[in-house]
Amino acid sequence: MGWEKSLLGLKWRQLMRPGLCLLVLLCCLTLGPRPVQGDKVLVMPVDGSHWLSMKLLVKELAARGHEMVVMVPETSVLIQSSDFYRTENFKVPYTTSQLEASINQLQSGVFLEPPRITDLFVKVQHLLNFTNLQVKGCEGLLYDKLLMQRLKAERFQLMLTDPFLPCGSIVAESFNIPAVYFLRGIPCGLDDMATQCPTPPSYVPRLFSGNTDHMDFLGRVKNMIMYIVESYLCKIMFVKFDELTSRYLEQDMSYKELLGHGAVWLLRYDYTFEYPKPRMPNMVYIGGINCGKRGPLPADLQEFVDESGEDGFVVFTLGSVVSQMPEDRGKLFFDAFSRIPQRVVWRYTGVVPDNAPANIRVMKWIPQNELLGHPKVKVFITHGGTHGIYEGICNAVPMVMLPLFGDQEDNVLRMSVRGVGEVLRVFDITSDKLVETLNKVIHNSSYKEKMLKLSAVHKDRPIEPLDLAVFWTEFVMRHGGAEHLRTAAHDLNWVQYHCLDVILLLITIVITVVMGTIKGCKVCFRKCCRVKMTMKKKSE
Amino acid sequence: MGWEKSLLGLKWRQLMRPGLCLLVLLCCLTLGPRPVQGDKVLVMPVDGSHWLSMKLLVKELAARGHEMVVMVPETSVLIQSSDFYRTENFKVPYTTSQLEASINQLQSGVFLEPPRITDLFVKVQHLLNFTNLQVKGCEGLLYDKLLMQRLKAERFQLMLTDPFLPCGSIVAESFNIPAVYFLRGIPCGLDDMATQCPTPPSYVPRLFSGNTDHMDFLGRVKNMIMYIVESYLCKIMFVKFDELTSRYLEQDMSYKELLGHGAVWLLRYDYTFEYPKPRMPNMVYIGGINCGKRGPLPADLQEFVDESGEDGFVVFTLGSVVSQMPEDRGKLFFDAFSRIPQRVVWRYTGVVPDNAPANIRVMKWIPQNELLGHPKVKVFITHGGTHGIYEGICNAVPMVMLPLFGDQEDNVLRMSVRGVGEVLRVFDITSDKLVETLNKVIHNSSYKEKMLKLSAVHKDRPIEPLDLAVFWTEFVMRHGGAEHLRTAAHDLNWVQYHCLDVILLLITIVITVVMGTIKGCKVCFRKCCRVKMTMKKKSE
Repeated sequence: MGWEKSLLGLKWRQLMRPGLCLLVLLCCLTLGPRPVQGDKVLVMPVDGSHWLSMKLLVKELAARGHEMVVMVPETSVLIQSSDFYRTENFKVPYTTSQLEASINQLQSGVFLEPPRITDLFVKVQHLLNFTNLQVKGCEGLLYDKLLMQRLKAERFQLMLTDPFLPCGSIVAESFNIPAVYFLRGIPCGLDDMATQCPTPPSYVPRLFSGNTDHMDFLGRVKNMIMYIVESYLCKIMFVKFDELTSRYLEQDMSYKELLGHGAVWLLRYDYTFEYPKPRMPNMVYIGGINCGKRGPLPADLQEFVDESGEDGFVVFTLGSVVSQMPEDRGKLFFDAFSRIPQRVVWRYTGVVPDNAPANIRVMKWIPQNELLGHPKVKVFITHGGTHGIYEGICNAVPMVMLPLFGDQEDNVLRMSVRGVGEVLRVFDITSDKLVETLNKVIHNSSYKEKMLKLSAVHKDRPIEPLDLAVFWTEFVMRHGGAEHLRTAAHDLNWVQYHCLDVILLLITIVITVVMGTIKGCKVCFRKCCRVKMTMKKKSE
Repeated sequence: MGWEKSLLGLKWRQLMRPGLCLLVLLCCLTLGPRPVQGDKVLVMPVDGSHWLSMKLLVKELAARGHEMVVMVPETSVLIQSSDFYRTENFKVPYTTSQLEASINQLQSGVFLEPPRITDLFVKVQHLLNFTNLQVKGCEGLLYDKLLMQRLKAERFQLMLTDPFLPCGSIVAESFNIPAVYFLRGIPCGLDDMATQCPTPPSYVPRLFSGNTDHMDFLGRVKNMIMYIVESYLCKIMFVKFDELTSRYLEQDMSYKELLGHGAVWLLRYDYTFEYPKPRMPNMVYIGGINCGKRGPLPADLQEFVDESGEDGFVVFTLGSVVSQMPEDRGKLFFDAFSRIPQRVVWRYTGVVPDNAPANIRVMKWIPQNELLGHPKVKVFITHGGTHGIYEGICNAVPMVMLPLFGDQEDNVLRMSVRGVGEVLRVFDITSDKLVETLNKVIHNSSYKEKMLKLSAVHKDRPIEPLDLAVFWTEFVMRHGGAEHLRTAAHDLNWVQYHCLDVILLLITIVITVVMGTIKGCKVCFRKCCRVKMTMKKKSE
């Protein structure tokens, strides 16, 4: 009976939906999470692509009435002033050209030769040179006493920072304000270590291991070796960070320990990109935060892609850092593109040959997300940075991936195992290979179908990543931290965490009991034997 | 400059807020997560308090247009028919009085004597008797071929079940439909094991250990011992579940393995109640789902509490299962309540003395959440079930807690370490102790202050628990599961998960290399010595 009533009741319940939404609106206006207007937030970003997504959160927080102050090193490339936030410049003890040289070193040789196993150490050395330079930049800020005093006097409620570099968290600790971290990750898995997040090496692949989350025995051996090597490399990698932390804060504290004080970690990934693995209570996943909003395309570009016909067009970019390549590599791409019917929009500042085909539009900077959102886009050629990958997923565009350095090799592997793209190596690419792969990804419908499914899962979420990031940032301001999310594991050392002391005690007890029992049995046995022998002798 | 503009810009940005909300409304009407109307959901609940919160989700899903079919054993106590859902009854091979006897066994002796260490085994035996009876009930359903065929023919899209009992997950597997679990937890931490969630014994306290998340060395020893004991008890505990799973599904599968197939786990706790610990991607926290909505109080009760004056009133209940107590214990409470100025609303079906004080209102069933939401409530006397605890937190009412059995001892410990209540033992309570504790909790403002803070944190969330539960249930229906949240750890055995095979190989290699090097050195050393000796002899 109730069942029929329930069926009949469907209609008015459907009508309830707009009613419910009206209720949401009313709650939003009266009860809903209130913005903490007037709070002051100090922002310590990392330059380059790292800043591009953090800027979205900074702007949104400013729009919600928070006073945002962004710290900008004088050599900044992408961090610029804005109507939304105030900027504070600080001096750094290196020049722009020194910084550029250090960045160029990170990508040296990627177009020319395949990576070797020993390259790991060279890569780490290059990354070390780069981060050490940045640490010097931090010192430029921290030891500028006048600036630091002025900032401290402003009584900020929060530090929003990217812990890829240590300045932000050191300032937060020094000013005694809570910190919210905004990042993709920190080399060596320092983020997992600092949050006390378990990452079992049996199914959580290490960076550069070439493993997915499904490993056979050899894969697990490789992963474990990478785990051990990483532990060693990390010690070298963060030695300057540790030293600066201890020196500036005048206490014996490693950078990892300092990071453990972070209130909330806003991590730019989700489970359509990352493999399913444990996470800690203060880790918030905001993957895809960068492709929430799309602006209009410039008129001429709009026309160029609108008129790409049935064949559509290809978007090609190697990220915010790499806009050039050796001339012979460049020619190879021009050659390949001349052999496909698609139009190509390419972010490229290198040499353009005189006979460049007409289907290519070369640009210094492209509106990537806007292009990927166009209905005629067929494929996205990308280096595999997380921003690009998420814009690809969000707009459901299959990919041809050319990883260059850093986490890119790892990122593209995640996409290729999901069947939404193909990987090519930029050092041994040929125009034939490129044409063949482009045609494969464009014409084999499985790439698009899988990407559509992945995109649907990615976008089907209870709350948008930007709103989630805003919520947790404001939460930390409202409550002066997020102490209820801080795990007790932070108060344990390595031996205690793994209960090695307890295991040792229990093993000792077990051994003592077993040995005692055996000895007792032996004594009893001997006594019995003696009694028997005596009785035997007596009876004899 | 940008800074001043930003300040000036505040006003129009504040105006944006209603605008944003309007946008939310529009999105809700057009784009927002669409309900999967017309989908059929099979619901296999667990009777008693477990059902009370699951019912909220079932009703909400029905209101959103889903066809809900709830399976009800013929001995059901609290699962009743409703306009919102259809019910399907099934026969069970035991009587209501047998079930009641089994439930009474669970609480036997709690009012009379303090628990002893050996009680753990007795408790487990009682729980075993109870669950074994329920397993028989499952069999009543599973082996009712006609009913099962009819259900299968209905082609449900989803199974919503409480995995405290195995019927739901076995039916889901048998019908090949995804399962969403709705629960507080499963004894022995089987939920953590089934989700592959790490629970390091160094800071994740085991049930009945009496530990919090901060343990000293002895606490960790105790925790580790409980961990080992639990592993043993679990084997006994779930032997019938395992047997039924394998027998019915006709494959060698443990109940834990079967549970691992669950798409999403809706867990009735959050970090204001639970200690911060790792969680897996398909674990969704919906603590506080039961105190979202409050209805009006009955007129006479409203009058009784409204007129409680400055002193306010006390709410007293020992949960849905325990409504009586031995007469002498009852008298003790009547005596204590006669000595406090507060009025008392008490859920009690036991003997009421003739001279019962006028400030007590004894009732067979009380609208607990509604009473706790009244502004004049001063303290909540509770047995420490999670429903009551969350209603206490949600309404910010300090507690006096009298744990009886099951997880209650553990629950109240979580609240007392947060300083929001006091714990008394029901077996050695006196009216003096009770009066003293009530006065302490009412007049020492720290309990209320801490509870207000805890409540504020609990209610400050990006999305309401019921909406979150609805979202993830519908997500599983939209995508036919939640495969992207399933960790690869499910495909590993115990040795592989802990990489013991890899560690063994690496240790063997290290030992071989070290031994080889030592042997090599020895050979070299001997050769050197021989050469020296020969040269010495020659020179002699």
